[in-house]
Amino acid sequence: MNTPWWERTDLRYRRGRLHLGTHDLANLARSAGTGTPVYAYHAPRIAANFRRLRRALAAAVRQSRVFYAMKSNRFVPLLGVLCGAGAGVDVCSPEELLLARQTGFREDQISFTGTSLSEDDARVLARHPGVILNCDSLASLRRIARLAPGRSVGLRINPGLGLGYRSNRLLRYAGGDVTKFGIYAEQFPVALALAREAGLRVNGLHFHTGCGFLTPQLPVLDRIFARVRDFIRQAPPLDYVNLGGGLGIPLTASDAPLDLARWSAVVRKHFGRDRFTVCVEPGDYLVKDSGVLLLEVNTVEEKAGTRFVGVNGGFNIHIEPAFYELPLEPVPVVAAAASAPTRRVTIAGNINEALDIWARNVRLPRLAEGDVLAFLNAGGYGAAMSSQHCLRGAFREYLLP
Amino acid sequence: MNTPWWERTDLRYRRGRLHLGTHDLANLARSAGTGTPVYAYHAPRIAANFRRLRRALAAAVRQSRVFYAMKSNRFVPLLGVLCGAGAGVDVCSPEELLLARQTGFREDQISFTGTSLSEDDARVLARHPGVILNCDSLASLRRIARLAPGRSVGLRINPGLGLGYRSNRLLRYAGGDVTKFGIYAEQFPVALALAREAGLRVNGLHFHTGCGFLTPQLPVLDRIFARVRDFIRQAPPLDYVNLGGGLGIPLTASDAPLDLARWSAVVRKHFGRDRFTVCVEPGDYLVKDSGVLLLEVNTVEEKAGTRFVGVNGGFNIHIEPAFYELPLEPVPVVAAAASAPTRRVTIAGNINEALDIWARNVRLPRLAEGDVLAFLNAGGYGAAMSSQHCLRGAFREYLLP
Repeated sequence: MNTPWWERTDLRYRRGRLHLGTHDLANLARSAGTGTPVYAYHAPRIAANFRRLRRALAAAVRQSRVFYAMKSNRFVPLLGVLCGAGAGVDVCSPEELLLARQTGFREDQISFTGTSLSEDDARVLARHPGVILNCDSLASLRRIARLAPGRSVGLRINPGLGLGYRSNRLLRYAGGDVTKFGIYAEQFPVALALAREAGLRVNGLHFHTGCGFLTPQLPVLDRIFARVRDFIRQAPPLDYVNLGGGLGIPLTASDAPLDLARWSAVVRKHFGRDRFTVCVEPGDYLVKDSGVLLLEVNTVEEKAGTRFVGVNGGFNIHIEPAFYELPLEPVPVVAAAASAPTRRVTIAGNINEALDIWARNVRLPRLAEGDVLAFLNAGGYGAAMSSQHCLRGAFREYLLP
Repeated sequence: MNTPWWERTDLRYRRGRLHLGTHDLANLARSAGTGTPVYAYHAPRIAANFRRLRRALAAAVRQSRVFYAMKSNRFVPLLGVLCGAGAGVDVCSPEELLLARQTGFREDQISFTGTSLSEDDARVLARHPGVILNCDSLASLRRIARLAPGRSVGLRINPGLGLGYRSNRLLRYAGGDVTKFGIYAEQFPVALALAREAGLRVNGLHFHTGCGFLTPQLPVLDRIFARVRDFIRQAPPLDYVNLGGGLGIPLTASDAPLDLARWSAVVRKHFGRDRFTVCVEPGDYLVKDSGVLLLEVNTVEEKAGTRFVGVNGGFNIHIEPAFYELPLEPVPVVAAAASAPTRRVTIAGNINEALDIWARNVRLPRLAEGDVLAFLNAGGYGAAMSSQHCLRGAFREYLLP
């Protein structure tokens, strides 16, 4: 068998059985009980992703910090891994903030970057004066000035340029159409004046311009960073600038991993001599490739010329393939013989919606009822965005040591 | 003020305040507490929708039944309204089946139409011999034959033609691309033979071919019904044929309500003389226009030429606008003066995703922080598909008498 594109030291077949770290995924699926979808996250991979990124950032700038974007996966044991490894955490709602505190993050390890901030949201922030706060509108500045007078605040800015790995219209954060996020250049002096008059100290800037970017998108990042300098020049002396997240990982055989050295060089070029702390807040980059989703085949059947493989979980437990056209690579947990023929199949979930398809027209060895498929790169925006649609929302999550 | 397109006897301004039935929605939002999105469903509207459809179907055929598709909204008090009104319920998972039983539906009032049926799913069905069961694959027939020998089963068929109100690729159930649903014509004889050999009695047919159809789509329904006759001819004598759901409601000013008399005439043309019971299983048609979602404005702000209105709930509590491009009409719960100017705004939710937009470029009177907007036609596929994304999934639901 050729080496599959996704193989890594900690994700590979051993004696024909797919292992995540030292864990036999077929055994894990069986031990979790029949009929239950299983998410498994490999803790060492998460820690390794964090350390790799921290090193690359530290090599580029004088002071740096890595915050984990909790929204990508809030499974509590996983938060513990990142907290233990020394990551900060970025939260975007009061409940995420409270969960971060509950799971051991100190206030000064938490960055809050929300949108459409309500009065209730602001009240929770006022009770957490040590949390790093990024405001993305004049309205939220006014609200914070009133409820938490004298507070330090960062400003989420919008450099008006976006980037993203895939062209899906749903994944554009900045650039192109006007987005709801951040303070645009023309409002920036107004925001600074408003903060000053309201007695707030502006101590940071934050921006986030895309998601899932890989090496080919780095020139756009370079242009975005250049634009950010215009904001920095107008701002008072800053404690930090947060470059956001968006660092991507390969999702298909044709993707190459993000060249972190080149990313680091782009960061160094723009921020290498600054005295403020340079922060990043990745979600997917830290957790996505740590996770697999294990689903059991219950149907193998030809319909009007298409061979369908039905599994015991649907798009409601991981919406990325159906809604974002972001693929999860399906891999049998027990390998077929190298000589076994393959054929094209379409993998369908168990939800009564036509869009509930995991993968179309993918080449796999023969599958039978009872076989288990591992969907790779399922560690981000899966469980976190799951719903109880059709009351088929049950799954188990495992942190694998 | 001109009469708005969505006004009905039970949904209109009274003395400048939006009422759902006798309920002042501004008061309801306030009584629910600040900061919490509120779903409100008008029980009399649900009952009226049910009775209207039951009458139209009864006028068309000899024997008829209406099943409510639980997946559209499983709020328990709402299920109680439909159960009390005499509706059956269609479920698509074991948990939905159990919830139907828990909320007072007898087994013979429940129809199960699932997909990618697992061994565990089949075991639950085997414990409910009185439930009407539609199998959509040969695999599920084999499974049922083994776990519930001798059972009566219906066959979900796929006539290979689909229809839908909007062209969104995500909403196609049949036709065009091959879908995962149902048994296609070429497999139908195989399915009948398999059932016969396995000792199962085929007593019904089921099909579902789209969603949200209105009067202009009725000619396609006519063609679909004609194709279904080919399946009926091959089948043994049937107790029922279930025409599925998909009946739509107007979502914009340019939609006209489905002409139920014409729909009834199409049903009569094809099934008026049959002795079997003709069933339908609408979801949206019964509940969508009964519901509003109340969100509070917390941000009104211009960004790069776009006027954004931020509200205290995001796409994770109602995914239809963001993912399906199905609009929810935003209406202020307190009317502006007739002479008040309007302007175009974009309504944004509080989730950190660029796609989290409720409505783009809609004309509304001036709004201020603290104002409440009612999003109309929010009664279906809203709460039922909600997630805890960003831990901003909280809302309250009310059944209004």
